[in-house]
Amino acid sequence: MCQLLGMNCNVPTDICFSFAGFQARGGATDVHSDGWGIAFFEGKGTRIFLEPTPSCTSPVAELVRQYPIHSKNVIAHIRKATQGVIGLENTHPFMRELWGRYWIFAHNGNLLDFNPDLDGSFMPVGLTDSERAFCWLLQELRQRFGSTAPAQATLFASIHALTLEISGRGEFNFLLSNGDCLFAHASTQLSYIVRQAPFTQAHLKDQDISVDFNEVTSPNDRVAIIATQPLTDDEPWTTMPAGTLWWFEEGRPVETLETRPGPVKKPA
Amino acid sequence: MCQLLGMNCNVPTDICFSFAGFQARGGATDVHSDGWGIAFFEGKGTRIFLEPTPSCTSPVAELVRQYPIHSKNVIAHIRKATQGVIGLENTHPFMRELWGRYWIFAHNGNLLDFNPDLDGSFMPVGLTDSERAFCWLLQELRQRFGSTAPAQATLFASIHALTLEISGRGEFNFLLSNGDCLFAHASTQLSYIVRQAPFTQAHLKDQDISVDFNEVTSPNDRVAIIATQPLTDDEPWTTMPAGTLWWFEEGRPVETLETRPGPVKKPA
Repeated sequence: MCQLLGMNCNVPTDICFSFAGFQARGGATDVHSDGWGIAFFEGKGTRIFLEPTPSCTSPVAELVRQYPIHSKNVIAHIRKATQGVIGLENTHPFMRELWGRYWIFAHNGNLLDFNPDLDGSFMPVGLTDSERAFCWLLQELRQRFGSTAPAQATLFASIHALTLEISGRGEFNFLLSNGDCLFAHASTQLSYIVRQAPFTQAHLKDQDISVDFNEVTSPNDRVAIIATQPLTDDEPWTTMPAGTLWWFEEGRPVETLETRPGPVKKPA
Repeated sequence: MCQLLGMNCNVPTDICFSFAGFQARGGATDVHSDGWGIAFFEGKGTRIFLEPTPSCTSPVAELVRQYPIHSKNVIAHIRKATQGVIGLENTHPFMRELWGRYWIFAHNGNLLDFNPDLDGSFMPVGLTDSERAFCWLLQELRQRFGSTAPAQATLFASIHALTLEISGRGEFNFLLSNGDCLFAHASTQLSYIVRQAPFTQAHLKDQDISVDFNEVTSPNDRVAIIATQPLTDDEPWTTMPAGTLWWFEEGRPVETLETRPGPVKKPA
């Protein structure tokens, strides 16, 4: 299994603090040492850093941790391989282009016997269930909407319908972004926190590092951090109920939909 | 205008030496300071480093120069913007997936009024003529061959036909790779060298750095380096005639085709 980290903000923000804790889980404080990756949107462009090696000892991860890249949408992943050998082609996040926008996807879970019909428009390069699911999602979106992107609410409803089709096949926690918004599926395990004024201090669980957000933010900044497990030990993280799909935009949850029967908490 | 750097090898090789010279041209020894990027294939996977800032002062470029990533196919680019503002989405190389393989593309030149019909299968994210040409090339390849990749020789013939269609629109020097081979179009300016046993020393033009390839190679290694302008001042680079398309594989040119009337030298 793997761990996910996402960030969605209303102004471009660096993820150095959160990534410092996450990086440690890639082989130091936790077992996810089969590769790591992080993708940043900067406007419509993306930068992706990927390595099929542990993040805790990677010079590239060290650079990412120290080099403030400002982004409104970030998706990161540390890998404990289930399907697909350890290799760059099986390292998350994955990227494709649809409707003239890059799409970024990372998955934590395990889909069993998931071999959907792929028509060739988006084909997996590696051997993971995750990339297969991503390709199928984009194929189905293009089939529904042709060559023009729908409105965001319509898009969210479609991603919900497609997630329902896949989520019966196994654990399917994922983060997906087109640079405007970030969709997060809590199949079994995902938490989030929104940081906004009045800002406070925070202390990482996985490294003895603290930050006072008052010193590094402006009053109107708003940042949502989404992670498999909370990254700090002194902030009120919200556990996202198993079986919920979330639409984050401008640093906060906009809408939540159930992906399996059971009570679902709406965002406040 | 911009500069291109490519590498095609028979065994995974690092590009640190060549990149050191190339990096200096991004704002130090030359004027290409509007962004830089480099893409490495590792098996079927890729890593891309991109920045919309000068390579000569970039901490990420510094990491790339010092961190030996072993690859059989590499494409790098330093940018002097012609079409499209300075921004990550307009920074080369570009990447798309076709036939379950990543394709990497970088362009040096300027295409005038090149606005081909795009059917939505590959759409530009940025505003460059370069990404438009890349999307059109891949669209046409998929239209010709459907969802299955053709044999390499058939592929080369098709890329030749498509290059002929574009090259009347302006300068169109490019490097293109699917991880197996590297296609290089010398529209106006491109040179290459093949390094193989017996290996010699080489000295960079742009930095006072030398390497003795005897010390860092095995007897069967073969590496082709392709660049807008020769990177070393003591090696016999071959000028690729204007109007030639080259297919490199396993560290050497395999075939050359003319892309405009005039005498064409075949590789030895």
